[in-house]
Amino acid sequence: MEIMQVDQPLVCTRRVEGLRDINLRVLRDRKGGAHVAVDPVGCHEGHWVFTASGSAARYAAEDFRILTDLTICGIIDFWEPDES
Amino acid sequence: MEIMQVDQPLVCTRRVEGLRDINLRVLRDRKGGAHVAVDPVGCHEGHWVFTASGSAARYAAEDFRILTDLTICGIIDFWEPDES
Amino acid sequence: MEIMQVDQPLVCTRRVEGLRDINLRVLRDRKGGAHVAVDPVGCHEGHWVFTASGSAARYAAEDFRILTDLTICGIIDFWEPDES
Amino acid sequence: MEIMQVDQPLVCTRRVEGLRDINLRVLRDRKGGAHVAVDPVGCHEGHWVFTASGSAARYAAEDFRILTDLTICGIIDFWEPDES
Amino acid sequence: MEIMQVDQPLVCTRRVEGLRDINLRVLRDRKGGAHVAVDPVGCHEGHWVFTASGSAARYAAEDFRILTDLTICGIIDFWEPDES
Repeated sequence: MEIMQVDQPLVCTRRVEGLRDINLRVLRDRKGGAHVAVDPVGCHEGHWVFTASGSAARYAAEDFRILTDLTICGIIDFWEPDES
Repeated sequence: MEIMQVDQPLVCTRRVEGLRDINLRVLRDRKGGAHVAVDPVGCHEGHWVFTASGSAARYAAEDFRILTDLTICGIIDFWEPDES
Repeated sequence: MEIMQVDQPLVCTRRVEGLRDINLRVLRDRKGGAHVAVDPVGCHEGHWVFTASGSAARYAAEDFRILTDLTICGIIDFWEPDES
Repeated sequence: MEIMQVDQPLVCTRRVEGLRDINLRVLRDRKGGAHVAVDPVGCHEGHWVFTASGSAARYAAEDFRILTDLTICGIIDFWEPDES
Repeated sequence: MEIMQVDQPLVCTRRVEGLRDINLRVLRDRKGGAHVAVDPVGCHEGHWVFTASGSAARYAAEDFRILTDLTICGIIDFWEPDES
């Protein structure tokens, strides 16, 4: 799993049916790159989270039929980001 | 899921049967790299979209038997690309 | 799917049974890196193709039991490679 | 599988149900990047381990329903890290 | 599939059960990075091989229950490594 920081929500009205109306979040990896994840945990901006990718992401989304390849699995209690 | 921008369609007459006559799109990632995706949403050039990869891409293609590893999942309402 | 250029065939007499006697091709990505792919389409050196990876690659190989993680899915009618 | 070094445990009280109360470990890859893995082996800080990713990670977690995409598969008896 | 060169065996007494007593090999990619693979072919140090990753790796290991995400699929008869 990877460690990322929660950024803004992603507003996306036109989407495939398989994503339904689930909440999407923009996450930032350690180099600042943006990724889109499903959030079944309930995060707020600034939270450090870790994510599962691949088929595990679908299982983690609480409903296997959610068509995601990246899902937030938990909020880290304390995380000191790397300098680099 | 990753955030990319829609580029031109991909013209490809000779292809494996499993792709049928589905529309293929060239997408550009944030560094300008080209990727090919199935488009079940109906995008236009310049749109910012997010994509699912891996086995989720097949589910998102509306017909699981479509042989894709990258599918457009939605059009982002508003996206300000990163500077870098 | 990724866009690559067809290089030489890969000669490989000792291989796992699951690959049988299928044709293997060396492909070059845009940075010149070499990858090995199954070719069910019938490519020639210099062709620009796009490839499916992951489990989609096995489906695209026309026989799901072919043990590949990269398969050529089609020949692009026209492709102008990036400068970089 | 990849070779990584065990760093601190990851404290994460709020998590998806599918991860239960399993131990999570921060691992460092050879460039110092942090990853989160499930540890069914029982590692200590400083150990060199190798990890399985993707669906293999779920099988390696001893319970296929554990929602991981990275699992420690073994402790390497002796490993001399690369200089670079 | 990727092209790599066989390095030393990996000695690893403590491992998850799913790997059993199968032989593990350290491989070097073209940039010198180390990876761990299952070897059902019988390679020697210095051999150039190509590998399957993901779920294909488990199929290629001759026993689908082997918990690997990287398996050697064949020994390349002749390979001239890239300069870079």
